[in-house]
Amino acid sequence: MINHTITFRVRYSECDPMGVAHHSAYAPWLEMGRTELLRAAHADAGGLNYRALEEQGILLAVVRLEIRYKQPARYDDELELRTTLTQAGHVKIEHAYELFRTCDRLLLATGSTTLACLGRDGRPRPLPVELQREDRD
Amino acid sequence: MINHTITFRVRYSECDPMGVAHHSAYAPWLEMGRTELLRAAHADAGGLNYRALEEQGILLAVVRLEIRYKQPARYDDELELRTTLTQAGHVKIEHAYELFRTCDRLLLATGSTTLACLGRDGRPRPLPVELQREDRD
Amino acid sequence: MINHTITFRVRYSECDPMGVAHHSAYAPWLEMGRTELLRAAHADAGGLNYRALEEQGILLAVVRLEIRYKQPARYDDELELRTTLTQAGHVKIEHAYELFRTCDRLLLATGSTTLACLGRDGRPRPLPVELQREDRD
Amino acid sequence: MINHTITFRVRYSECDPMGVAHHSAYAPWLEMGRTELLRAAHADAGGLNYRALEEQGILLAVVRLEIRYKQPARYDDELELRTTLTQAGHVKIEHAYELFRTCDRLLLATGSTTLACLGRDGRPRPLPVELQREDRD
Repeated sequence: MINHTITFRVRYSECDPMGVAHHSAYAPWLEMGRTELLRAAHADAGGLNYRALEEQGILLAVVRLEIRYKQPARYDDELELRTTLTQAGHVKIEHAYELFRTCDRLLLATGSTTLACLGRDGRPRPLPVELQREDRD
Repeated sequence: MINHTITFRVRYSECDPMGVAHHSAYAPWLEMGRTELLRAAHADAGGLNYRALEEQGILLAVVRLEIRYKQPARYDDELELRTTLTQAGHVKIEHAYELFRTCDRLLLATGSTTLACLGRDGRPRPLPVELQREDRD
Repeated sequence: MINHTITFRVRYSECDPMGVAHHSAYAPWLEMGRTELLRAAHADAGGLNYRALEEQGILLAVVRLEIRYKQPARYDDELELRTTLTQAGHVKIEHAYELFRTCDRLLLATGSTTLACLGRDGRPRPLPVELQREDRD
Repeated sequence: MINHTITFRVRYSECDPMGVAHHSAYAPWLEMGRTELLRAAHADAGGLNYRALEEQGILLAVVRLEIRYKQPARYDDELELRTTLTQAGHVKIEHAYELFRTCDRLLLATGSTTLACLGRDGRPRPLPVELQREDRD
């Protein structure tokens, strides 16, 4: 299982009048999780990142997003996001996410996404081989 | 069936380096759809809005969000979002969404959300009676 | 004087724990003001918009932003933003902004921006002639 | 002179179709800089943070923001933001900012903000004494 955990603080600008992180703030967090998982997973290969992929004309577009919000995240809370690559096929990649509050390990949210690999023309194209790694320990 | 359609343009700040609306931009759009559905549904009763609900200490928190992205939305595209109240129980409300590009009625995305009614203390509380309307024609 | 007024509502996602629009939400509003001023100013010429400019490889980058916040904007407030083209030189364009609350015409904020015209290579280039219009009545 | 430097990466969701961080993304960065400067400056006093201030009914509202954008920040760039407290009077606090790209110390932007201290009623109130520290070396 390929996974990676990042730690970050909730920004004031991400919080809403209820005093908690707005639900739309979570999608960029999941994206940060994917970015860092990719970087970490390929650290041995000199580093692979979304930016380099995009520069090669390989776009990874989110085609499905689901988030379940269990407990609110508050401004200045330190959070831990665990991102797991759950499936990588020919064209699509799936990730699962668990978001915790660092101080007490409370589970705040879970989520999942599906990404599709597209070329610059917006058409599906095969994932680069190095991203087609199967779920493994 | 209670539903409502809003029209708006994609903002430049909502678009990403792929030149299309970033997937996190959609959640605020769905929220706009809910806001305007509520306003429209209660127009006959002198207007009901989330702001007034919050001032009464009634919070509607998103507890689940799902979005399926089918086609990209581009900067300056005029979009139509159709929001439908699919269920309103004692504590939870569900909505479904369809997002179209105005010029050619292309379906860009679908989504669904579940909201829970909370008090200022963050605990679940019954929805106000006027929001507990069943799905009807 | 070339100017244009747009009307819009404050989104919930734009508001912060103080219950008012977060100061970072205003920059996208000013950008909407510029987008619509450009569209309106060239409506007679069949329409000119930033998207078309970008497709021609002409980028308008914000190089200076100043905003003075006088009174808070609240969730669901209807606002009016008046955008004025104050100067258009060879490479730079300046705009001034006044933001009002519609219901009582209260002035909420003022601002100004300077945009520079860049080519795809990121280097300054002359503004297209049709944008080099002087301040006039 | 009280100052503090934070390091962070540009998020994909912060970037626009020009492939660079959108100008509206910088205001939340400056706010992060202020949050961490406050935390660091009062670390010896057991920590002081905006969240605790807000819980005491002390709000710090941005009343003026100015940013000068010199060079673009790109997705995944690691940036360093140096935040300096330039003045702290009875009611207002001023900060100055310098944003660098970590890899080559290129100066990307400078900025300044003025914050006013408000009570829950939205009226100006004196800054807490511990925040009224003068500019000093």
